[in-house]
Amino acid sequence: MDEKTIKKRVKTIRRRMLAKKVDCLVLSGPENVSYVTGFTGQDSWAVITGQKVKLITDSRYTEQAERECIGCEVVERKRSMAKAVAQVIGRSKSIQTAAIESRCSVSAFKELKKQLKVRLKAVGAIVESVRRTKDPGEVRAIRSAVKFAWQGLDLALAKVRVGMTESELAGLIDLNIRKTGSANSFETIVAFGAGASCPHYQPGLRKLRASDTILIDFGAKHKGYCCDMTRCFVVGKVNRFYAKVYAAVVEAQRAAIKMVRAGVKVAEVDAAARKVLAQYDLPQFGHGIGHGLGLEVHEAPVITDTAKDRLKAGDVVTIEPGVYIPGKLGIRIEDDVLVTEAGCRVLSEMDSFKSCRNTLQGDKIKMPII
Amino acid sequence: MDEKTIKKRVKTIRRRMLAKKVDCLVLSGPENVSYVTGFTGQDSWAVITGQKVKLITDSRYTEQAERECIGCEVVERKRSMAKAVAQVIGRSKSIQTAAIESRCSVSAFKELKKQLKVRLKAVGAIVESVRRTKDPGEVRAIRSAVKFAWQGLDLALAKVRVGMTESELAGLIDLNIRKTGSANSFETIVAFGAGASCPHYQPGLRKLRASDTILIDFGAKHKGYCCDMTRCFVVGKVNRFYAKVYAAVVEAQRAAIKMVRAGVKVAEVDAAARKVLAQYDLPQFGHGIGHGLGLEVHEAPVITDTAKDRLKAGDVVTIEPGVYIPGKLGIRIEDDVLVTEAGCRVLSEMDSFKSCRNTLQGDKIKMPII
Repeated sequence: MDEKTIKKRVKTIRRRMLAKKVDCLVLSGPENVSYVTGFTGQDSWAVITGQKVKLITDSRYTEQAERECIGCEVVERKRSMAKAVAQVIGRSKSIQTAAIESRCSVSAFKELKKQLKVRLKAVGAIVESVRRTKDPGEVRAIRSAVKFAWQGLDLALAKVRVGMTESELAGLIDLNIRKTGSANSFETIVAFGAGASCPHYQPGLRKLRASDTILIDFGAKHKGYCCDMTRCFVVGKVNRFYAKVYAAVVEAQRAAIKMVRAGVKVAEVDAAARKVLAQYDLPQFGHGIGHGLGLEVHEAPVITDTAKDRLKAGDVVTIEPGVYIPGKLGIRIEDDVLVTEAGCRVLSEMDSFKSCRNTLQGDKIKMPII
Repeated sequence: MDEKTIKKRVKTIRRRMLAKKVDCLVLSGPENVSYVTGFTGQDSWAVITGQKVKLITDSRYTEQAERECIGCEVVERKRSMAKAVAQVIGRSKSIQTAAIESRCSVSAFKELKKQLKVRLKAVGAIVESVRRTKDPGEVRAIRSAVKFAWQGLDLALAKVRVGMTESELAGLIDLNIRKTGSANSFETIVAFGAGASCPHYQPGLRKLRASDTILIDFGAKHKGYCCDMTRCFVVGKVNRFYAKVYAAVVEAQRAAIKMVRAGVKVAEVDAAARKVLAQYDLPQFGHGIGHGLGLEVHEAPVITDTAKDRLKAGDVVTIEPGVYIPGKLGIRIEDDVLVTEAGCRVLSEMDSFKSCRNTLQGDKIKMPII
């Protein structure tokens, strides 16, 4: 992150603060703090006024903050966060009303209110609304995260053996992602067989059988930016029903991706995939078809059948339809796409990695068989 | 988790609800939800009334919830969480005032308030105060987490090689923990050399040198329960200053552990370690000397020099003094202890694992050298 980028972000945020009549904004969400300061640690808040940005941290992070922060002052607190924030705000005589983002907890809000001499209100999603639109540097970071994720998955898949547990395969993927210097963007899901019918399955000690299926939902994080992909694989003999459902999910995902374009209603993207599944008489997935991603693995926009939002150029979103039949199977295919004025660019497509190729590339659907 | 345990927990919580004049409590924190329902997934809330406990989840988790929940009804929501909670509360005519825990976000509070027909207030730490005291089953789960963590660390340390990156070693530890079927309780910290002077260091691509030091802060999670330990190691030639500081930190930790007993002021435990470091003219650590742990890796009580709290029998806390000299070294030693009436029991001490033995056992401080 460079100084120019940070300055531009803060400028945009100040404009939105002005529109909401906020002359001092307190940020408590780590990703929001990171977005305006460059700081990547935890438990630290930022205060944005008309003139300055200050990071309030404690001694566990001071060394890191001094190294990472760009265009902001680092304040090391000795007492509670609320007292430290109140002190920083108290020094600026021009502040009439302070605002804190409404993602903070009720208890944090109450405590800060008690310490402040000026009025405090909670405001929603100012920074999140700016973060939603990714600039080229952010897209590059997501693209790097994608590369490291596929690299990790490819290396792990080469070591898949019958008898291995779900947990072990998840650990192998994570290890190989870490070898690239990146981290996981969330806890890796590995589900063998029918376990995959739980969309948010937790990997356990179930062992891989000679004839089995694998669902892997995972992602890497590079320079703070997340990717999030899901792939399904068949081990040994292919079950005909599984192959049929797999083809339908691929078709549903393609139909949804085809709909992605700036200005389109998110519900229409969701509907496009559901229409395909309905044609094959398959049950509908209970989750939305996708979500934004960036510094957080789930951020704006939400893409569901009931959301009123429209896609915007610069959104990076997942497209992840699935079919879940308890006791039988779970198949989900998930890619990350950048919304553009003309359509979209699939960020998770990469020629050089085996494990990512099986769904989106080429005209024929090829079942990924290990 | 068995039905009897859950029933006992809910009964205790209901007693505290009564004391706070709360006849309906909404829980949003995943660990609190898990504590009263047995459910281990995310994005789900629980509602406790005088008669019932209900889990409100969505279709991604319904299958898992039906399998895991004990003594509670599972409600699958189709629309927003606030609407679903309001509907559940609306059905019970006897509820005059609903309460939600104050750890929920301001925006969640506002949204629920909008949907409810009865008054809504925020209350602090009802479930957390019950969770603080661990029963024998919980202590056993933490003890198992400790066993799996040491097992993972031992296996990883056997593979430490000069040239390996911090990220790779962290990944190796994580993989070996996962092989046991457990998960990480937080993101593993591996810091080589002077990087360890940042207490919350993030592992990167720094390579291990032939003469180097390693700090590892890590933990496993078993049946939802976390452990959290830190160990330091020397690779190759031992630097005399490092050895001196290491011995002082061990002594400081022993002094603090000696203080642990039900009824003791937490600040006194913190002070005992600081006194030792002061005797050696070493800088004081900026963080508190410890924290409670259980379903969360950081929970009540907080053990700092300013906290007013006293230890209680059944608390499980970390004791983790450290010395941090930027550009030079960082040494922290962390163990998990159960507070008893008579003193404490160190839960992270285990004869069978090499990597845990180097600090607490025996009279002589033995530098752990790889």
